[in-house]
Amino acid sequence: MEDQSPKPIRCKAAVCRGAGEPLAIEEIVVDPPKAYEVRVKIICTSLCHTDISFWQGKVSPVFPRILGHEAYGVVESVGEHVKGFAAGDAVLPTIVGQCDHCSSCLSEDSNRCEAVPTILGPGMRRDGTGRFWDAQGNPLHDLLAVSTFSEYTVIDMSQLAKVDPALPPKLGCLISCGGATGVGAAWKEAMLKPGSSVAIFGLGSVGLAVAQGAKMCGASKIIGVDLNPDKEKFGKAFGVTDFVNPAQLDKNKSVSGVIWEMTGGRGVDCSFECIGVPSVMTEAFKSTKKGNGKTIVLGMGDDKEEVRLPAQDLLYGKSIMGSSLGGLKPKIHIPILADKCMNKELELDGLATHEVGLREINTAFDLLLQGKCLRCIVWMDK
Amino acid sequence: MEDQSPKPIRCKAAVCRGAGEPLAIEEIVVDPPKAYEVRVKIICTSLCHTDISFWQGKVSPVFPRILGHEAYGVVESVGEHVKGFAAGDAVLPTIVGQCDHCSSCLSEDSNRCEAVPTILGPGMRRDGTGRFWDAQGNPLHDLLAVSTFSEYTVIDMSQLAKVDPALPPKLGCLISCGGATGVGAAWKEAMLKPGSSVAIFGLGSVGLAVAQGAKMCGASKIIGVDLNPDKEKFGKAFGVTDFVNPAQLDKNKSVSGVIWEMTGGRGVDCSFECIGVPSVMTEAFKSTKKGNGKTIVLGMGDDKEEVRLPAQDLLYGKSIMGSSLGGLKPKIHIPILADKCMNKELELDGLATHEVGLREINTAFDLLLQGKCLRCIVWMDK
Repeated sequence: MEDQSPKPIRCKAAVCRGAGEPLAIEEIVVDPPKAYEVRVKIICTSLCHTDISFWQGKVSPVFPRILGHEAYGVVESVGEHVKGFAAGDAVLPTIVGQCDHCSSCLSEDSNRCEAVPTILGPGMRRDGTGRFWDAQGNPLHDLLAVSTFSEYTVIDMSQLAKVDPALPPKLGCLISCGGATGVGAAWKEAMLKPGSSVAIFGLGSVGLAVAQGAKMCGASKIIGVDLNPDKEKFGKAFGVTDFVNPAQLDKNKSVSGVIWEMTGGRGVDCSFECIGVPSVMTEAFKSTKKGNGKTIVLGMGDDKEEVRLPAQDLLYGKSIMGSSLGGLKPKIHIPILADKCMNKELELDGLATHEVGLREINTAFDLLLQGKCLRCIVWMDK
Repeated sequence: MEDQSPKPIRCKAAVCRGAGEPLAIEEIVVDPPKAYEVRVKIICTSLCHTDISFWQGKVSPVFPRILGHEAYGVVESVGEHVKGFAAGDAVLPTIVGQCDHCSSCLSEDSNRCEAVPTILGPGMRRDGTGRFWDAQGNPLHDLLAVSTFSEYTVIDMSQLAKVDPALPPKLGCLISCGGATGVGAAWKEAMLKPGSSVAIFGLGSVGLAVAQGAKMCGASKIIGVDLNPDKEKFGKAFGVTDFVNPAQLDKNKSVSGVIWEMTGGRGVDCSFECIGVPSVMTEAFKSTKKGNGKTIVLGMGDDKEEVRLPAQDLLYGKSIMGSSLGGLKPKIHIPILADKCMNKELELDGLATHEVGLREINTAFDLLLQGKCLRCIVWMDK
């Protein structure tokens, strides 16, 4: 009887051989999926600032590595014990796992799976080993156990959300990480309500998705803060009602001071830091209202940086928290976001400002580094 | 027809005439209650570290002032428009108001009344004026609009909780601020569950009340941290299961590191800072588990101090928040705590380690400053 089990696949991938170096398109070998794993054919992927942080070596500087974590793909084959996925399924990879059995997955207030926790270093989450090899047979490290800058990749079944095959692949990329993080932060973490006021620091893709999420929840005041004056136009298209450019303020005014004025001396119900700069986190915290003002940190900074907060503001009821994937449980909530995008309750399409083929992936890096794009979609077959 | 309206009352009070000076027992005049206010005969009061902070002038240094905010009293008379209180009612004053009409009072997730917010400076909360005068007719400032170091005081009706007259007055003192803050923080803010693990930094009255609250919620690991070795015994009497004395650790070990070891490398579900020292807040934050670890700040530090937190731990899901009165809505929850104390579900009696009469109130200051007491009850009629 012929062996039907999946075989290694030879395919193309964009490999990062050193910190800050242009990616090289190489032929690689992708192992078959092991137990609880799924091998996925990537249709398109997009570039996020988190990829840039790893590429620059600011976080977990391990090379050679296949980056990429925002994507839309189709299941190619499944390993032993995989349930709920079959060849041909439309899937979105996520850096947050959901095992459905640990205390976190069973609780309502956390999406931090304990069985397959997010780890910055390379290695599949169940056994720590890799699935990629270069043409010389040397191992290539993965990124966050997803590595989507490859025609094929292997992903743990806990890190895949099955979506309606009618979802446009481009939208799939957008909601697999950045869009989900922003919308989720407004919807699930902040639990914004009709009439809520918010301030969003940084109108990149995540910040603009926060604006869409806030609008979806009925927030009435959505203040966008960005140093780039072009972001006012983008912001308003995504639901921002007021724009503050810190570079255009009087020298004696702080952003938080201006936000206090704009909210009748109260401060906003919730602020979102979407950049990853500790001093901006402090300003976001100061912009929230006394009492139960919330600050949600979505931006990823460097290792070992510290955020400083006025201690008495904490005592008087302000809080600050971070969020991974906007607090969403990927298998449950990402399909809901996909439906909301398809029925236009959420409009995230505008985040995809550029499109290139895999061979031009370094252009996507240039565009994001220069602040010229929101999300650049990278099509694998172009 | 005779004028039945309340008249000014001459009575004794302990007056603080300058930062750090011994209180002076003086004859004062207490105005009648204005609209929405209640005049209360104080039966007993207790001394809390917050009183010390104001007495030392670390916070709102305004003198002469009548301090005190933990107490048990009986309604003497009520002003116009007062509902729900009548002469003879047993009441506990609280520094947190509850108007029952603002968005915060109507919400489930905040006890920060917006109509009568907590203000550190003196003055009644509706009109900013005072109700106390010295023998020469000069005004005496209030503390947090309660001022319980006086035989009579005037309090806004939003800052009074009516309790069962069977509640022992001493227990009333204990739950009117410190006890409510600690128990509430475990019960309402942290929402501890059976099996939760917690670390409590500082085993003063608030920290010990956190331990009782954690025990009431079924927490299985309750780690107490204090520099005073005597607190191990006190802690265990209040529910602490493990004790860490930072002064007795090896030099290369941090408290948070030891707590990680004690929890199998996970960190605690929730930590409570009950001292008010920013560096301890940082250590408390580091002691919580990755993912959804919570830190709750209950200790009041100096103005303008900053707390420093590792920014990436925030991003990966830890949160930190402060709490006033443990997140309790005073009129709803304090009577519940009173019942829990009476039926022994909560055992806070041990917090009252000393008792003096009003004339000896400076002894209560000495005992607390020297760390020799938890709560010293001050009886007004002794």
